Amino acid sequence: MRSDARRNRERVLAAAEEVLATEGMSASMRAVAERAGVGLGTIYRHFPTQEALYLEIVLDWRRRLLTDAADLSTAPDAGVAFFAFATRMVERTTRMKALVLAIAQVDGTPDAVPALAGSPDAAAEDARLRGETRAAMEVLLTRAQDAGAVRADLRLAELLALLNAACLAAAHIGWTDDLRERALAVMFDGFRPRPA
Amino acid sequence: MRSDARRNRERVLAAAEEVLATEGMSASMRAVAERAGVGLGTIYRHFPTQEALYLEIVLDWRRRLLTDAADLSTAPDAGVAFFAFATRMVERTTRMKALVLAIAQVDGTPDAVPALAGSPDAAAEDARLRGETRAAMEVLLTRAQDAGAVRADLRLAELLALLNAACLAAAHIGWTDDLRERALAVMFDGFRPRPA
Repeated sequence: MRSDARRNRERVLAAAEEVLATEGMSASMRAVAERAGVGLGTIYRHFPTQEALYLEIVLDWRRRLLTDAADLSTAPDAGVAFFAFATRMVERTTRMKALVLAIAQVDGTPDAVPALAGSPDAAAEDARLRGETRAAMEVLLTRAQDAGAVRADLRLAELLALLNAACLAAAHIGWTDDLRERALAVMFDGFRPRPA
Repeated sequence: MRSDARRNRERVLAAAEEVLATEGMSASMRAVAERAGVGLGTIYRHFPTQEALYLEIVLDWRRRLLTDAADLSTAPDAGVAFFAFATRMVERTTRMKALVLAIAQVDGTPDAVPALAGSPDAAAEDARLRGETRAAMEVLLTRAQDAGAVRADLRLAELLALLNAACLAAAHIGWTDDLRERALAVMFDGFRPRPA
C-alpha cells in the first residue's frame, strides 16, 4: 500500500472509532468521512461496507495489543515491561469496550462483535491474534515473576480476569482517567510479591 | 406480616430472581409461581405487577447489603470485617448484575433499573439505601485502616470502583466461583498496607 493510502486508511479507522463510539452502528459512513476529512469514495475503497470497517477496528485493536506485548516481552526490565503492558492493555481495551457497549446500546447484543460472526476469515484472524497475545502475555508474566517484580502465584487466568474487569468497569461506568490510574495502582500492588 | 405470608414472600422473591436471571423480563409470573411452588394469586397478592416484583428484588438486594455493612461495622476485628464485607458485596452484587444484564439483553438498557424510573417512592428508598450503605462502608474502611489492616491511602472511590469492576466482570464474563475467589484474593492484597 502506498504511504498516502496507508495514512488515509489510518485516518478513516481513527475517525470511525470516534464516530462509532458516540453514535453506535447507526453512524453513517458520511459522518466518518467528514470526521476523517476524506471523501466518501476513499472510505469505500478501503472498506466496502460498514461491517468491514467495524471489523477492521476490532482487528486493528487486537494487532496493536499484540505488537505492544511482543515489543515489551524482550525489554530489559521485565517488571517495568509487565506493568507497562498491563496499563496499555487497560487503556486500549477500555476504548474498545466503550465502542462495543455503544454499539450494544443500538443492536442489543452487549459485548458481541456481530461482524465477526459473518466473516470466517476475520474470525480466524481474531482467534489467531488472541492466541498470540495470550502467549506473549504469558512470557511477560513469567519474566516479571522470574525478576521478582510480580508474585510467583499469580496465574494468567486471574491476571486477565482482573484486567478485563478494570476495562469493563472503566468503559461501562465511565471511570475518569484519574480514577483509572488510582484504581490500577491499587490493583497492581496486589500483583506484586509481598515482602515476608 | 404473618410469618407464613413472610415466608411465601421470600420464596417468591428468591424464585423470581432465578427465573428473571435466566429468562429476562419476558419471564412470566406463572413461571415464577411454578418455581416458588405457590399459586399465581399468592404472587399477585404480594406483587401486583412484574415491575413491582423486580423493584422489590432490587431494593431487597440493597437492604441486605446495608444490613451486612451495618452489622460488620461494629465487629471486634475491623480488618476481618472489612474483607468479609468486600467479599459479601461482590457475591451479592454479581448475582444482581447478572440479573440486570439478563434483563438488559431483553430491553436494551444495560445497567439501568427501568422499574425505578417509574416509581418515585422506590427511587427515593433506593437512594437512601445507597447513601446509608456508602456511609457504613466508609466506617468499615476507616476502622480497618485504623487497625492497620488496610492501606491508609485507599479511598472509598477506588475501593468501590474495583469492587464494582469485579462484580461487573464476574456477571458479564461469567467467572466461576473459583476464579472469583482467586481474583479477589489478588485484588484484596492490593488493599493491604505494604510493609516498608
